[in-house]
Amino acid sequence: MKKFTLFTPGPAEVPPRVLKALSEPIIHHRSQDFREIFFEVREKLKKLFKTKQDVIVFASSGTGAMEAAVANFFCKGDKVIVVNGGKFGERWTQICKTYGLDVDEIKVEWGYAVEPDDVKKALEKNGNVKGVFIQGCETSTGVEHPIKEIAKIIRETRGDDTLFVVDGITAVGVFDVDMDGWGVDILLTGSQKALMLPPGLSMISASERALKFMEKSDLPKFYFNIKREMKAQREGETAYTPAISLIKGLRESLRMIVDEEGLENVFARHKKLASILRNMVEGLGLKIFAKRPAPGLTTIEIDNAEEIRKKMRELGAWVAGGQDKLKGKIIRIAHMGYYTEGDMIYVGNVLKTCITGN
Amino acid sequence: MKKFTLFTPGPAEVPPRVLKALSEPIIHHRSQDFREIFFEVREKLKKLFKTKQDVIVFASSGTGAMEAAVANFFCKGDKVIVVNGGKFGERWTQICKTYGLDVDEIKVEWGYAVEPDDVKKALEKNGNVKGVFIQGCETSTGVEHPIKEIAKIIRETRGDDTLFVVDGITAVGVFDVDMDGWGVDILLTGSQKALMLPPGLSMISASERALKFMEKSDLPKFYFNIKREMKAQREGETAYTPAISLIKGLRESLRMIVDEEGLENVFARHKKLASILRNMVEGLGLKIFAKRPAPGLTTIEIDNAEEIRKKMRELGAWVAGGQDKLKGKIIRIAHMGYYTEGDMIYVGNVLKTCITGN
Repeated sequence: MKKFTLFTPGPAEVPPRVLKALSEPIIHHRSQDFREIFFEVREKLKKLFKTKQDVIVFASSGTGAMEAAVANFFCKGDKVIVVNGGKFGERWTQICKTYGLDVDEIKVEWGYAVEPDDVKKALEKNGNVKGVFIQGCETSTGVEHPIKEIAKIIRETRGDDTLFVVDGITAVGVFDVDMDGWGVDILLTGSQKALMLPPGLSMISASERALKFMEKSDLPKFYFNIKREMKAQREGETAYTPAISLIKGLRESLRMIVDEEGLENVFARHKKLASILRNMVEGLGLKIFAKRPAPGLTTIEIDNAEEIRKKMRELGAWVAGGQDKLKGKIIRIAHMGYYTEGDMIYVGNVLKTCITGN
Repeated sequence: MKKFTLFTPGPAEVPPRVLKALSEPIIHHRSQDFREIFFEVREKLKKLFKTKQDVIVFASSGTGAMEAAVANFFCKGDKVIVVNGGKFGERWTQICKTYGLDVDEIKVEWGYAVEPDDVKKALEKNGNVKGVFIQGCETSTGVEHPIKEIAKIIRETRGDDTLFVVDGITAVGVFDVDMDGWGVDILLTGSQKALMLPPGLSMISASERALKFMEKSDLPKFYFNIKREMKAQREGETAYTPAISLIKGLRESLRMIVDEEGLENVFARHKKLASILRNMVEGLGLKIFAKRPAPGLTTIEIDNAEEIRKKMRELGAWVAGGQDKLKGKIIRIAHMGYYTEGDMIYVGNVLKTCITGN
């Protein structure tokens, strides 16, 4: 018999009532029934993103929304700054270079958060910076970057001339990212993390400032054309066929997050779960890898990480390993989305058994 | 109480056992369990596409695979021919133009199939044509284009210099498109038609000839990068997180199509369903709109089409209307995928009741 719980930073566990919504008979996407679902989803996504702007839904993984963030708002040759402190920071650089942007990277040692002052210096060094790209949480290292502080610096030093683009794939719905309040210009996420859904949906929102950049963008985009989607989605439709079942599931999970538990309570729960697990980890004499750990996942330094992961899996707890240069050196235990204190006691004790043998 | 059957050309009905697969607990995509599912899906997709090549799966609607067909194989300024006989032919032109290709359109009156000879003439008129784009079935008009004949012309007149790109979104799994046998270079489809799944997946395959073009392509692509996906998918993984639940559903539907009923039997069933419905339609004195009707859907000329559609919906049969200039002039009844002779008798009689009043 196989039985396991996913503690991976995507996909994360999906609640039974969301799974149930996925298995309902299919409905047509150009129907009043779908429009009502989609309007409800749209309103709740605005609350999730803390924005008054449209939140656009794509049928794609989160990487699709990252590409949309580049292709819709910039021009060939634009100078941009990428904060690269892990695998997903690297991805920003790759996407920007694919589209011919001129990238200045702030390289951050894996496990560390960027210093806001380093962003300030990079902005001063490069004159005409059109965008700053970062992760809210760098999922490969478990680090939370200081988004609020960086947003402040960009707004104070660059006014409306520079867009602040935040990959919120393991941040939105996990901890506070106040898009409108802090002045984040482009914020995006994916379905399979805090949103407690299977993978297959991504969401992205753009500030008024970013929408002005959009009018000038000369990069090619068709499937990920935000302007076209915005027009359609305001009418409760999508430009191309949406992933109907996943959107039905999304309505269910947003009801759970936004209406029932409440976003701030979800944030508090994630903090609490992180604290419970980290106490257990430190009690085992292990070190947390992230210097500024995000509330959505805990990264742990372990010499024989792959062996421990395998043992944990045999006991039913599916955790992630390190990527690239961290492979075999860390394990990553996620606790964003559908997790309770009991889950932390369970996974912490599985880790203990695998480390100590009892 | 609401109860209805979708007879729309996407989404189409989803079998209960596929719906059930969608609601199973989520598994991780970098696991042996997922790899086994994905390897099985890959093998069956090759049979579905009638190819020895890789069939790449994306988390996107079919339009994503259409964009991939352009962005991965061509260069800026390439001369291409687009057969445009409806809304989806138009889409090829839009995507090609978005990427800076030089498009020569063969405009075909809506409702008609392209004459192979017109493709031949267009190839002769334009010297250095890199690609010919077409639909296997133009879903907006219900027309089947003569793919086999056009493939023959391209191979005979252009050898390896021109790619034949077929949007098979309402063709693959509906009627015979022998990719390798006929010399189709790029073939693609989507999940929500003959594959009997909800929308959210697209699939694309490329000939050896096309893979050589891929090496030279200078157009930007990241999420829809076929080369990167091919490398990952051969290992049973994907470059970015796949739509795990839909891929589990895909395994189920491919088992039904490829293993259980058999592809040729599915084709024969679609032909039979088309014939049953069309006999009923003509018995009512109505005209089939498509001059060369495809087996996947039946388009019917009706003056008060929107009124009839509404009435049919009230009786539980959800059919599609005309798009753009055909709005209000035709209805489209799809019968690709999970439909039986009994379904045709049902929808045909619903139409009869709405037309004749009894």
